[in-house]
Amino acid sequence: MRNIKLEIEYDGTGYCGWQVQNRPKTKDQRPKTAKKSIQEAIEKTLQKILQEKIKLIASGRTDAGVHALAQVANFKTETKIPAWKLQRALNGNLTKDIAITKVEDVLPDFHSRFQAKSKTYRYTILNRNYPSALLKDKVYHFPYPLDVDLMRREARALLGKHDFKSFGASASSVKGTVRTIKKIAIKKSTYDSREPSLITIDIEADGFLYNMVRNIVGTLIEIGRGKLGKGSVKRVLALRGREFAGPLVPARGLCLLKVKY
Amino acid sequence: MRNIKLEIEYDGTGYCGWQVQNRPKTKDQRPKTAKKSIQEAIEKTLQKILQEKIKLIASGRTDAGVHALAQVANFKTETKIPAWKLQRALNGNLTKDIAITKVEDVLPDFHSRFQAKSKTYRYTILNRNYPSALLKDKVYHFPYPLDVDLMRREARALLGKHDFKSFGASASSVKGTVRTIKKIAIKKSTYDSREPSLITIDIEADGFLYNMVRNIVGTLIEIGRGKLGKGSVKRVLALRGREFAGPLVPARGLCLLKVKY
Repeated sequence: MRNIKLEIEYDGTGYCGWQVQNRPKTKDQRPKTAKKSIQEAIEKTLQKILQEKIKLIASGRTDAGVHALAQVANFKTETKIPAWKLQRALNGNLTKDIAITKVEDVLPDFHSRFQAKSKTYRYTILNRNYPSALLKDKVYHFPYPLDVDLMRREARALLGKHDFKSFGASASSVKGTVRTIKKIAIKKSTYDSREPSLITIDIEADGFLYNMVRNIVGTLIEIGRGKLGKGSVKRVLALRGREFAGPLVPARGLCLLKVKY
Repeated sequence: MRNIKLEIEYDGTGYCGWQVQNRPKTKDQRPKTAKKSIQEAIEKTLQKILQEKIKLIASGRTDAGVHALAQVANFKTETKIPAWKLQRALNGNLTKDIAITKVEDVLPDFHSRFQAKSKTYRYTILNRNYPSALLKDKVYHFPYPLDVDLMRREARALLGKHDFKSFGASASSVKGTVRTIKKIAIKKSTYDSREPSLITIDIEADGFLYNMVRNIVGTLIEIGRGKLGKGSVKRVLALRGREFAGPLVPARGLCLLKVKY
């Protein structure tokens, strides 16, 4: 039995997320607007190619509209098709919204979720008066001025091991709400010849609560626009209640950048 | 009478191009698959906001599927709405595929097409084995190895004033097929943490023949993959026949970057 690891890039715009979410199994019961999951799309293509029942295990779920540059997933198979050929067949058969960027054989005990040491998410804000057509589904357009230096200074309070209860609900009650943020990088850049207008917020942690990145970013935006004062991140962390943090920002600005093992 | 200049960013994926192309005017005659033009979408929105008949003049047409970071267009109007308010109203009413990135009053004799001194187009090639999901409609995926240094050296022969007949048909017989290329920049870059895989080819000229950039890029690719030898660009230029140049590359890799006045 082989254990195969995939790296996957996807545009989450048209999907209900990585995983199927209570979706009726027969076509008749399903509303026409129901969106497919990324997992479902890849599993179906794998089964078509391999003629085997395939169960994909990802490093974790991503929500509807969230993108990935390098999601990781693995599956067991009896096939003898070499990895490079499987990659070519997958990319040839999948929709253009999903690209398999790496395929490799790994040791039998490799598990995409249990063995992930850290994950890095990027949230991208377009901070200027007018929207962008070319980045429309990849950024959150926030038109009011933001004090990026202040956001950067405040974000430092998130580094290290904390109870992040204020920034999300635990996906699993077993694991609790304590996580360790290893790195936060907030950068301004430009994608055109105009003033820098993109703000990227990269967060690396050993794990994330449900909606944690989007709640942190919502809080940092409240700080950057002056609605929450200095020391707010520290205070919100200490209060341990979702109601103290800023609002949830839209999914389209979020992208899973990297999973480390 | 005011003369207003717009800068426009657009994702050309779902459009028939800048201009309407022999499209039946009534809904009944029109096939359901007929795509709208960018010009039509903006003119309609302007007319709705200004309650006037508006005729937009652009720096030039772009083809179906071609994008723009900063297309320029102007129109005459009697409105008293200030430029900044008009920009906000336009972006509030337009589809997300089109963003108005600048609105300003200009002198009465300003003409987007006749006064354009140069235009810069960018063509983007994704040069790696596997495709990209996040860039799917913005790049041309070319999976075979390319010698970028050789492409760069060969491209130099295009600089200056030449008869570009081999690289396109003249849009207007009056203007002939002689154009001046002022600048060509070919760069390799990366959009993820992997090996550099994006090749951008920026070409600035006083004007372009129909399909000229896409034919030039098709020829440079033939050179980069070894199908055309050293000195080919010079030779193809001299032969003055479309049949000697490389194939036309897809529209989705092309973007109008800048128009200079």
